[in-house]
Amino acid sequence: MAATLAGRITAANETALRRLAAAAPVLTRIRDAREAIPQFGGRVLLHAGPPIAPASMCGPMRGAAVGAALFEGWAADPAAAEALLDRGAIALRCTHDAGAVGPMAGIISPSMPVAEVRDADPGITAYAPLNEGIGAVLRFGANDGTVIARLRWMREALAPALDAAVQRLGGVPLLPLMARALTMGDELHQRNVAATGLFFRAIAPALVEGGAAGSALPSVLRFLADNDQFFLNLAMAGAKAMAGAIREIPYSTVVTVMSRNGVEFGIRVSGLGDQWFTAPAPVPAGMYFPGFGADEANPDMGDSAIVETVGVGGMAMAAAPAVVGFVGLPSLREALAVTRSMAEITLGQSAQFKIPALDFAGAPTGIDLRAVVRLGLTPVINTGIAHRRAGKGQIGAGVVRAPLLAFQRALAAFAGRYTADAGAAPATVAE
Amino acid sequence: MAATLAGRITAANETALRRLAAAAPVLTRIRDAREAIPQFGGRVLLHAGPPIAPASMCGPMRGAAVGAALFEGWAADPAAAEALLDRGAIALRCTHDAGAVGPMAGIISPSMPVAEVRDADPGITAYAPLNEGIGAVLRFGANDGTVIARLRWMREALAPALDAAVQRLGGVPLLPLMARALTMGDELHQRNVAATGLFFRAIAPALVEGGAAGSALPSVLRFLADNDQFFLNLAMAGAKAMAGAIREIPYSTVVTVMSRNGVEFGIRVSGLGDQWFTAPAPVPAGMYFPGFGADEANPDMGDSAIVETVGVGGMAMAAAPAVVGFVGLPSLREALAVTRSMAEITLGQSAQFKIPALDFAGAPTGIDLRAVVRLGLTPVINTGIAHRRAGKGQIGAGVVRAPLLAFQRALAAFAGRYTADAGAAPATVAE
Repeated sequence: MAATLAGRITAANETALRRLAAAAPVLTRIRDAREAIPQFGGRVLLHAGPPIAPASMCGPMRGAAVGAALFEGWAADPAAAEALLDRGAIALRCTHDAGAVGPMAGIISPSMPVAEVRDADPGITAYAPLNEGIGAVLRFGANDGTVIARLRWMREALAPALDAAVQRLGGVPLLPLMARALTMGDELHQRNVAATGLFFRAIAPALVEGGAAGSALPSVLRFLADNDQFFLNLAMAGAKAMAGAIREIPYSTVVTVMSRNGVEFGIRVSGLGDQWFTAPAPVPAGMYFPGFGADEANPDMGDSAIVETVGVGGMAMAAAPAVVGFVGLPSLREALAVTRSMAEITLGQSAQFKIPALDFAGAPTGIDLRAVVRLGLTPVINTGIAHRRAGKGQIGAGVVRAPLLAFQRALAAFAGRYTADAGAAPATVAE
Repeated sequence: MAATLAGRITAANETALRRLAAAAPVLTRIRDAREAIPQFGGRVLLHAGPPIAPASMCGPMRGAAVGAALFEGWAADPAAAEALLDRGAIALRCTHDAGAVGPMAGIISPSMPVAEVRDADPGITAYAPLNEGIGAVLRFGANDGTVIARLRWMREALAPALDAAVQRLGGVPLLPLMARALTMGDELHQRNVAATGLFFRAIAPALVEGGAAGSALPSVLRFLADNDQFFLNLAMAGAKAMAGAIREIPYSTVVTVMSRNGVEFGIRVSGLGDQWFTAPAPVPAGMYFPGFGADEANPDMGDSAIVETVGVGGMAMAAAPAVVGFVGLPSLREALAVTRSMAEITLGQSAQFKIPALDFAGAPTGIDLRAVVRLGLTPVINTGIAHRRAGKGQIGAGVVRAPLLAFQRALAAFAGRYTADAGAAPATVAE
């Protein structure tokens, strides 16, 4: 019977790998979140990571929720917005429960534009908000007038122009851009310079040809051209669509979500569907911008680890030599070692994502819950470090290891669920 | 006295390295060649490489010269253009004598637009034609109606629009783009994907904001967005401006030009000014497109080796893993070995061009004529392979070694010139 369970896991994981290899996420629209995502209705906000109550939120996420309430016109000032939050007058839901992902605080409100990414064959749709750029931005909890004004401009000028251009192109397949960017020094988390450039080259002619941007065209082009990380959110939506194709495969031990709300780190596992397994979110180890230090760092935050979930970001550190020093590694040798070590906890190599410095070997793909727990080796995530106070913004960048405890909890639940089915001892699952 | 000569060479080469490190070429204009380049007047064509008579030209260069004559309206059909060429009614001059560089045939005619690149401090100006894209193009000797029509569109629509955008930006510094692209998998000869994307991001907003492109705006953006190698010609002009700063430093053994006309390979050396030293152009070793082979290959052609002259292209092979297989190397290991070996014939590492796979070591810079001859190790050049018949286009890509004979001839001339000055034996120069 134990052999049967192991065999079922193997078969389920092969299915997962096949689906990941067949993924073809396409950016199809830029739409109002409320039209795209059924979870909206009334005063609803989505937030990054596993569920959290307003009183438990970290500073940046609370600041972002307040900003979204101001943006939506639910409150006239921050104090009123906080009161709404605290008395439960704003419903909070997880991005991942809506098939969405957002960087850092990951707050998505009903009238924000979201990128809609579809993968037709498995019938998956995923969403992400548009990247705001750097500096004082909502995702780090900033919520002053300039932040709200930028969000309005994104809704009223940027989104319609992009939507028209995307539709004119008949959609923008994301995987070719992501794969090519990986051969150009991006790992698609900390660094999206190449991907943003490739996307810009794809979209700019269509923005102009359509004429849909009207008088906003120069500012739209400038906004896209000036933001090296614009593609991050699209990479995240693409990765979420990929992960969506393996969201619920009975017996599969493949990790489908890694995400953090700034307090807790949570994972989901294919064979356990949408159940969260959490542990305290660690503080990233890395490099701080001048004048900042670890005592000001917020614990790890955001849905962006969805890119590592599908094998890029920190998992593909070897693809991005320029990121190596930025996240505090001494040399490319260590980056190669990181990616090679991730092969120990993954089931295969990506059919799409290739790493030049490893002679185009595929990125480590299909994080196997069992291997993580057995080896005590957890996925590597490249991440920005947020100041713990709302709106202070990014204060550094670094690397975080997913906390083992979340995986141990998931494996225990997996054993409980499937050894009951198959009559095998939990120890068998771990092997 | 011998010590004095060696000392003078060392000091001159240090000057050369300092000038290369201080280079700051800026794309300042897109202008008609005849307005920019004093060598034009009447029926004049510039061509790549060392001087060559019309009857000796290879097929692609002759085809390109014919095409340029048609483009200029000097002849009504190809036969008439050939007759003009053969009876000397069209004056032929070397691109390098005009401070210009052109890929492959390198034909520049008076009314073609050229990119003007300036480096203010040494007072250098360099020029290159605009890249036409791939397929049937003049630089491979194609000269039919579509080729001529494209050249007209480039002159009448593309060039004015780009010129207005470049001027609006106050010029586009090329070295930051080149350096960044080198960290994104380009080596700036065979591969300019990243550089083209970075340039596109820089120029597209300015193209739109200025409004100068008028109704041509969509086609201009599309042309730029669809050509992965658009930046090659700008990189060449940038490299030519860098090399221009060391064009004539007495006693310097640094190579300042490597170029080929499809029959002969020629070099110039700083201490010997504008004198050419030539040898037969080799046929590149590499990979052929399906259906083509070495028997159809034209010998090496074009001014594009100016990028290797300043340390990128094949010299920086390690920067471009994606090029490795394309030019026929087995793996990244060999690419790293190529770049490391080039350190043996260069005087230093580039202060600007850094190679990620070598932990951001500088590209090998300042090719030392003496080291090349002493070691019998010549520069590595990445190159496209042209069909030997005009207009058949590119049939492959590969690597070519600059022929040693050209360097041996230059060293002999150097010894003749400077040992006469200093009274030392030629052998001393070679050390």
